[in-house]
Amino acid sequence: MRKTPVVAALLACVATAPLAAKEGMFTPGQLPAIAEDLKETGLEIDPEALTDLTGFPMGAIVSLGGCSASFVSPAGLVVTNHHCARGSVQFNSTAENNYLENGFLAQAKGDELPAAPGSRIYVTTEITDVTERMRSGVDTMSPTERYDTLEQRMKDITAECEEEAGFRCQVASFYGGAEYTLIKRLEVRDVRLVYAPADSIGKYGGDIDNWMWPRHTGDFAFYRAYVAPDGSAADFAAENVPYAPDHHLKVSAAGLDDGDFVMAAGYPGSTQRYATLAEVENTFSWSYPTYVKLVNEWIDTVEEAAPEGSDARVKYESLLAGLNNFEKNTRGQLEGARRVGLVDRRREREQALGVWIAADKDRAGYGEAIAGLQALSEESAEADRKAFWYNFATRPTLLSTAQRLYRLSHERQKPNAQREPGYQDRDMTFFRQGMQAIDRRYEASVDKAQWLLFLDTYLKEPAGNRVAVFDNALGLNANLGADALSAKLDGYYAGTTLDDVDTRLALMEATPEQLEASDDPFMQLAVALYEYERGLEAEGEERAGRAQALRPAYMQAIMQWQQSQGMLTYPDANSTLRVTYGKVMGGSPKDGMAYLPFTTLEGILEKDTGEDPFNAPAKQLQQIREKDYGSYALDSIGSVPVNFLTDLDSTGGNSGSATLNARAELVGLLFDGTFESVNSDWDFDPRTTRTIHVDTRYMLWVMDKVDGANGLIEEMDIVD
Amino acid sequence: MRKTPVVAALLACVATAPLAAKEGMFTPGQLPAIAEDLKETGLEIDPEALTDLTGFPMGAIVSLGGCSASFVSPAGLVVTNHHCARGSVQFNSTAENNYLENGFLAQAKGDELPAAPGSRIYVTTEITDVTERMRSGVDTMSPTERYDTLEQRMKDITAECEEEAGFRCQVASFYGGAEYTLIKRLEVRDVRLVYAPADSIGKYGGDIDNWMWPRHTGDFAFYRAYVAPDGSAADFAAENVPYAPDHHLKVSAAGLDDGDFVMAAGYPGSTQRYATLAEVENTFSWSYPTYVKLVNEWIDTVEEAAPEGSDARVKYESLLAGLNNFEKNTRGQLEGARRVGLVDRRREREQALGVWIAADKDRAGYGEAIAGLQALSEESAEADRKAFWYNFATRPTLLSTAQRLYRLSHERQKPNAQREPGYQDRDMTFFRQGMQAIDRRYEASVDKAQWLLFLDTYLKEPAGNRVAVFDNALGLNANLGADALSAKLDGYYAGTTLDDVDTRLALMEATPEQLEASDDPFMQLAVALYEYERGLEAEGEERAGRAQALRPAYMQAIMQWQQSQGMLTYPDANSTLRVTYGKVMGGSPKDGMAYLPFTTLEGILEKDTGEDPFNAPAKQLQQIREKDYGSYALDSIGSVPVNFLTDLDSTGGNSGSATLNARAELVGLLFDGTFESVNSDWDFDPRTTRTIHVDTRYMLWVMDKVDGANGLIEEMDIVD
Repeated sequence: MRKTPVVAALLACVATAPLAAKEGMFTPGQLPAIAEDLKETGLEIDPEALTDLTGFPMGAIVSLGGCSASFVSPAGLVVTNHHCARGSVQFNSTAENNYLENGFLAQAKGDELPAAPGSRIYVTTEITDVTERMRSGVDTMSPTERYDTLEQRMKDITAECEEEAGFRCQVASFYGGAEYTLIKRLEVRDVRLVYAPADSIGKYGGDIDNWMWPRHTGDFAFYRAYVAPDGSAADFAAENVPYAPDHHLKVSAAGLDDGDFVMAAGYPGSTQRYATLAEVENTFSWSYPTYVKLVNEWIDTVEEAAPEGSDARVKYESLLAGLNNFEKNTRGQLEGARRVGLVDRRREREQALGVWIAADKDRAGYGEAIAGLQALSEESAEADRKAFWYNFATRPTLLSTAQRLYRLSHERQKPNAQREPGYQDRDMTFFRQGMQAIDRRYEASVDKAQWLLFLDTYLKEPAGNRVAVFDNALGLNANLGADALSAKLDGYYAGTTLDDVDTRLALMEATPEQLEASDDPFMQLAVALYEYERGLEAEGEERAGRAQALRPAYMQAIMQWQQSQGMLTYPDANSTLRVTYGKVMGGSPKDGMAYLPFTTLEGILEKDTGEDPFNAPAKQLQQIREKDYGSYALDSIGSVPVNFLTDLDSTGGNSGSATLNARAELVGLLFDGTFESVNSDWDFDPRTTRTIHVDTRYMLWVMDKVDGANGLIEEMDIVD
Repeated sequence: MRKTPVVAALLACVATAPLAAKEGMFTPGQLPAIAEDLKETGLEIDPEALTDLTGFPMGAIVSLGGCSASFVSPAGLVVTNHHCARGSVQFNSTAENNYLENGFLAQAKGDELPAAPGSRIYVTTEITDVTERMRSGVDTMSPTERYDTLEQRMKDITAECEEEAGFRCQVASFYGGAEYTLIKRLEVRDVRLVYAPADSIGKYGGDIDNWMWPRHTGDFAFYRAYVAPDGSAADFAAENVPYAPDHHLKVSAAGLDDGDFVMAAGYPGSTQRYATLAEVENTFSWSYPTYVKLVNEWIDTVEEAAPEGSDARVKYESLLAGLNNFEKNTRGQLEGARRVGLVDRRREREQALGVWIAADKDRAGYGEAIAGLQALSEESAEADRKAFWYNFATRPTLLSTAQRLYRLSHERQKPNAQREPGYQDRDMTFFRQGMQAIDRRYEASVDKAQWLLFLDTYLKEPAGNRVAVFDNALGLNANLGADALSAKLDGYYAGTTLDDVDTRLALMEATPEQLEASDDPFMQLAVALYEYERGLEAEGEERAGRAQALRPAYMQAIMQWQQSQGMLTYPDANSTLRVTYGKVMGGSPKDGMAYLPFTTLEGILEKDTGEDPFNAPAKQLQQIREKDYGSYALDSIGSVPVNFLTDLDSTGGNSGSATLNARAELVGLLFDGTFESVNSDWDFDPRTTRTIHVDTRYMLWVMDKVDGANGLIEEMDIVD
């Protein structure tokens, strides 16, 4: 007599305690030490295999510089996130061929398009421990000497490594400088766009769904690596051939179910899991709240100066997207910190560490180091707070440009090996691209509106936070009214020639004297600030030099203390290759609510409004309505899984990471964390931290049923 | 080696299909027909008992007029929602004794405070079928005659019933007028406030959490019914004594678990489950979107005219809360309609009904009635759309006041029994209170700002939607500029005396001639519009008269059609007593997400920011931190349950409804539905519709541990 059949199933077990996630971004070298847990969690291949970076499967894992990716065919085919390749889609789009709107699929290799300038695929070939060479003798040095020595050694080691053409090398610091590793990577410079679905699939949900669950984003795209016919890295050229990687991943069409083992290999950017209490307090009680307030004003200013639909807005879309992203992330961090009681938890951790140190007088050195680090943290925080407003007040694009050019003119006076990082010969390609890119995101009127906002906040600061040399150079004084200030800035924009790309590129060859003689107002301001900023830099380096002695000791204490509790300390993320493992798992983001582990095709129908960013292609909607699942459905959810959640430990930079099953087959691509997870950068909360992946079954379903990318499906090894 | 112990439990079964809710707001008289399902679902008492309105448990269920409630002690103690009693808390609050902020608890009966003016407790004593008397002979009448006859019979039946002093009677229409019922209720007029927790418990989450899950609102409060020493209803008087109800509910301290049987008895206000396709289309493609747009502008206008912190804002808080509530609800309705494909579903239902009708030529009459109703629906919709802007343009408070007073003067010329509903002697107490209440929510400057907004939208309408008599009376013409219009309105506010309460009350005795001679500009406008509005009314009554013939036939068709499928048709909600039953049950509001059935005390800690509306009392927070659960915890969730979800079918008016377990013991109070449920007023979606209740264990925990309301706990029958 009811209209609805009574469904017998009950959510009984949902009411039980929420699940806890695993924590840890391990270096491949650490994996043998946790081999037992890897196997217990479900890994079927030999954990030892994961330590061989040139073997299978790690040899298939690559970095795009800022994103992660992996080889999925013997012909150099690389899969990554749509949002990691979108710049290349945009770069190739025109009004007639709008690939952002329509997607792009090369029908043959010859149709593949050059990726955006600066695109790279880095294939790690060698990792060497250089701790001894880096740290030898630095303990007894003065802070500044220590800083300079470490920096010089880093540059020297890098330069030696890069003597082999086509490779890019990096010395990475682990555990706050307790260990150093040299990473050597083949630098593929001819990167081509193979396939990217339309934004309405690859960016489905857009900024609204960013960091959100439930999610339905087809965040995948394909590049191909090309090299010279002899196999060496080369710039784009017609005769280049697809790179043949030693290893590539098989792609699973069978996929995962709830509770299955997963791992992800990628390049997480940065975490602060071991930040001191003073650093945490400064960040969450001052920096983040201050940023959130300022960034909101900043967004309003740009939106007003570059109204929707204007030409200027096109240039500032990317800045606005970044600011909104930052604002949402920072808000999530603040919310998360409140929720988990971050400051109290950190205080408790340090107290517990203190108790452990006090229990053995041999550990007294650790206590001193930690006290020194806390004091240094507070000193650094104070310097940061003082410089905060000045740093924004000196942000105008052409002032930064002038500062970089003037700095370059000075650095070029030194032998290459002694120049600051960023100003060496090896950096000049990116430097030049940076100078060129300004045209695509600069509009004087919008730049001025931002400068006025930042000057306004700077001018409200107490005298102690004002910088005399800046005030004098810009003529900022108490009598200067708003109109006069505005007119003064107009003079800068009217008088500069730095808005011309040829001028900027030409000035890369200028001497300090030539620039000091320039009548460009931005250059004059850059010259005026130069000595002051070098002073700030030297102070920062002196503090960094002290930290380079204190933080390794602090991390030694943490490592020994955790070891005494049976825990393996993993290093903070630093853009080097890491492995995280766990299970497919829903979660409870808040009391009374649960995230289910999978979303379904039907969820796209449910979300779709027909308006960006919820405007899936008509063909896709039709196929969902017809339940044309092909062979890609997951029985337990009765549909094709779109995105899924795991308890993996990830952060920015992990985007595009290969998500692997127990046999190291590709089952998904990691592309985001939930909003409740963003705070895990500081403090991993096992109840709420969840990572979001796009399921390979959805990727294959789109390729098969929507975009007809059957050639690529055939090129890959699809396994059941 | 991990920092977090691996929790073995898995959310495996969450991934299975979401649960479907039951549908149906049944009249007590229908329950024997579904006795079997009631027992199968878990009811332990005899279903037949629920049909006896003066027996147990239904005799304990009361109405507050707009809210539901129930007796919980032999001394007339009544429990309802905090939001249903909050007006009485506010009415008694002063700057010194801010009961909203601090809560209110009478230490003894003598300390109980009079509820806000107009507060009533209605105890249903008799229900009589009056269909025959109402409908006899109306089928052959003209539409207007039918309308008039039904209205006159309704008034006559009501008047006869109310001949017994102290009772309030109502003729309720069911199934679109196919059935009529006379409901007789004791009208308790001496209502006193006994206990209400602080807003920071009773309104926890405020407007932000309104219609939201997860929820943590202590939405309960206590009244007491008082009567004259002889047991008859009486106005507030010192010698009055607590009312002794024949029945009261026992209060369960053992409570519920996931999957347990529950039912709620209350007075749901209004649903449109049987609206025609034309009505649905007009509402969702025109009315609701138009309302949402206008209401957002309206909110902005009021917020600007009555800035936060101003005295004016105090007067408009209630309007703003109502508008925000309406806006959120309407948005939810639109979203829900899109999600479930409401228009398509209704179209399919009507097509299926059409097929059933076509299958038997004896059903041809139904087909004609339905065609007539569709045509009438479209005609009504067109009239509504045309009148929409005029109705807003004539909304200023004092114009409405003048219109009501002038209407009253006309109605008073007729014998009482023939006056329009709302203008009879029985209505004068509420009429007078309405005239008095204006002072608490009227400020000329804010009223004018709203009028300007509404006139602005009206003036933008095409000529066909303009009303000549209004344009002429107000002098609206093409040459009237914005400043002149504003100055013209100023004249209205400067020239009126209707802003004086004594004037308004005195004019309740005026004759039409006296009001026609008035020089009050609002009264002159009211007089000018009178005939036009009577014409509109007559047209509306003629359409209503047609509907009174067509809709019963349509509902007969629905009932027979549903019966042929084994379903029992329940009538749309109409503020009469209904029973809905089902289970404690989480749900899936959207793909990839689940609502858990209970929230916990710890969720309050998680939400609490210390700022309104997330500012639980310090004492409460402390007791949660100490896990001082007393005897109120639910093992399966490891805490005291705060709010819970069920699949009950409810709507506005159900607020305060007793939520009963299988033995008809009080286990909670129904107070809200989830955001995804609001659209169930039009179309019950079993996947997303969930009702929110406050758990009696939380209520008792707060009374015991936070507010020390132990006297009340002792007064109630608490059972395990």
